[in-house]
Amino acid sequence: MITTAVHKVNFYDTDAMAVVHHSNYIRWFEIGRVEFLRQAGITLTELMEAGYVFPITEVSAKYISSGYFDDELIIETSPVALTKAKMSFDYRVLRAADNTVLVTGFTQNVFTSRETGRITRLPDKYYDRLKTMLD
Amino acid sequence: MITTAVHKVNFYDTDAMAVVHHSNYIRWFEIGRVEFLRQAGITLTELMEAGYVFPITEVSAKYISSGYFDDELIIETSPVALTKAKMSFDYRVLRAADNTVLVTGFTQNVFTSRETGRITRLPDKYYDRLKTMLD
Amino acid sequence: MITTAVHKVNFYDTDAMAVVHHSNYIRWFEIGRVEFLRQAGITLTELMEAGYVFPITEVSAKYISSGYFDDELIIETSPVALTKAKMSFDYRVLRAADNTVLVTGFTQNVFTSRETGRITRLPDKYYDRLKTMLD
Amino acid sequence: MITTAVHKVNFYDTDAMAVVHHSNYIRWFEIGRVEFLRQAGITLTELMEAGYVFPITEVSAKYISSGYFDDELIIETSPVALTKAKMSFDYRVLRAADNTVLVTGFTQNVFTSRETGRITRLPDKYYDRLKTMLD
Repeated sequence: MITTAVHKVNFYDTDAMAVVHHSNYIRWFEIGRVEFLRQAGITLTELMEAGYVFPITEVSAKYISSGYFDDELIIETSPVALTKAKMSFDYRVLRAADNTVLVTGFTQNVFTSRETGRITRLPDKYYDRLKTMLD
Repeated sequence: MITTAVHKVNFYDTDAMAVVHHSNYIRWFEIGRVEFLRQAGITLTELMEAGYVFPITEVSAKYISSGYFDDELIIETSPVALTKAKMSFDYRVLRAADNTVLVTGFTQNVFTSRETGRITRLPDKYYDRLKTMLD
Repeated sequence: MITTAVHKVNFYDTDAMAVVHHSNYIRWFEIGRVEFLRQAGITLTELMEAGYVFPITEVSAKYISSGYFDDELIIETSPVALTKAKMSFDYRVLRAADNTVLVTGFTQNVFTSRETGRITRLPDKYYDRLKTMLD
Repeated sequence: MITTAVHKVNFYDTDAMAVVHHSNYIRWFEIGRVEFLRQAGITLTELMEAGYVFPITEVSAKYISSGYFDDELIIETSPVALTKAKMSFDYRVLRAADNTVLVTGFTQNVFTSRETGRITRLPDKYYDRLKTMLD
């Protein structure tokens, strides 16, 4: 299942080359990931309150075309792999107006116990919700 | 006592007008404030571990001249008022190369208990260190 | 006329106190201002292409209540003063879920010629559109 | 040749997991890259004034250990490949206090004409300075 989220490029997202600063897409992958989890019935707040954190272990991005101020962006998020200990996603960021793909990317994160800081296994309660999204 | 901190303008601090985005100076006031506290012998980490947070209640800034990529900035921080419950500072951000004042500003923050979220009084241990900085 | 814009708090908008970092509201005032201008029929891109930039000369904010990850925020923008050389706005940022006012604020900006860097007067073409919003 | 740059983690660089938000390291790779170019005798301002921009086409990062507020970071930058049309770098970000490697990464960028937006070849004047850094 691919989920979509929308983000409008703010003026403060641009840099002196008058395009979106490349680091922002890494942030917007997070918007996509959060939306994916939400559609799975999981919020990061709930996970954190249950004692889990979910640090990113890997990020990559290919920049194909520049984004500009006021562009409406579509962030597509699709699951790549899921175990009880880690999760990975692919992303595509498109400009809504003309469907141009601006950026593609990938992230991996692990589930970690807030208390011990060690990698941990996500309980079935959450894992099962995520698994249904992979079909 | 006025303390100084240094920040070099990064490319990612600029916007499509090819100047520093105005919101960044509010962040750099924080760099100045953290340095002021450090010179008083206080780190935010120590305060947080002791159960205190220090939310900002007021911010203001006047923008006099634009900052540019690669500018070396001096952030001057001077205390305005200090009680056991709140703290306020004035700031001046100057370009080191020509001493131009780019921005002046003000912040106020309160001391809050992490647990209750309520305004609290800073223990003498910290308060006394801060007080010596006001002379 | 008061315009409203919506912003959802991202995880990357939070800080180690687990609340929205105060500097972000200054950025979100910009979201409100851009939306106000859009409703007046003006985009920043159009202004920049016509040779105008619009640097902020003054910002202030009062922080009343903390914002949290995933909060849906309403940014209300209302014009305070308008001349051909400058423009000022008041803001209120509310949490949509319970209508709590999180932050109130003010900004002023001037219109500047991109070429000369000097304060300039906005042509009637734009000024008239803005004026109708003040009624 | 490997160059090093220093960055102190600011409070605003942290997120609600009380660690550095992962997107910031992508920004700090830029600090490393800018420093590398500076040591080659090239500033981005000079390149832009000469009509060149240098959009990022690829970024990747592996996150090994968390960074915290107030950590002093060392950003190591080493050239991977250089042609007149593109440039790529490897990065390591270490915590100065204990030499822990927090993040490793890679970026590639192309040289583009500001006017045409097309990929262009860097003049010898700049290329030669960069080449000496590869030895």
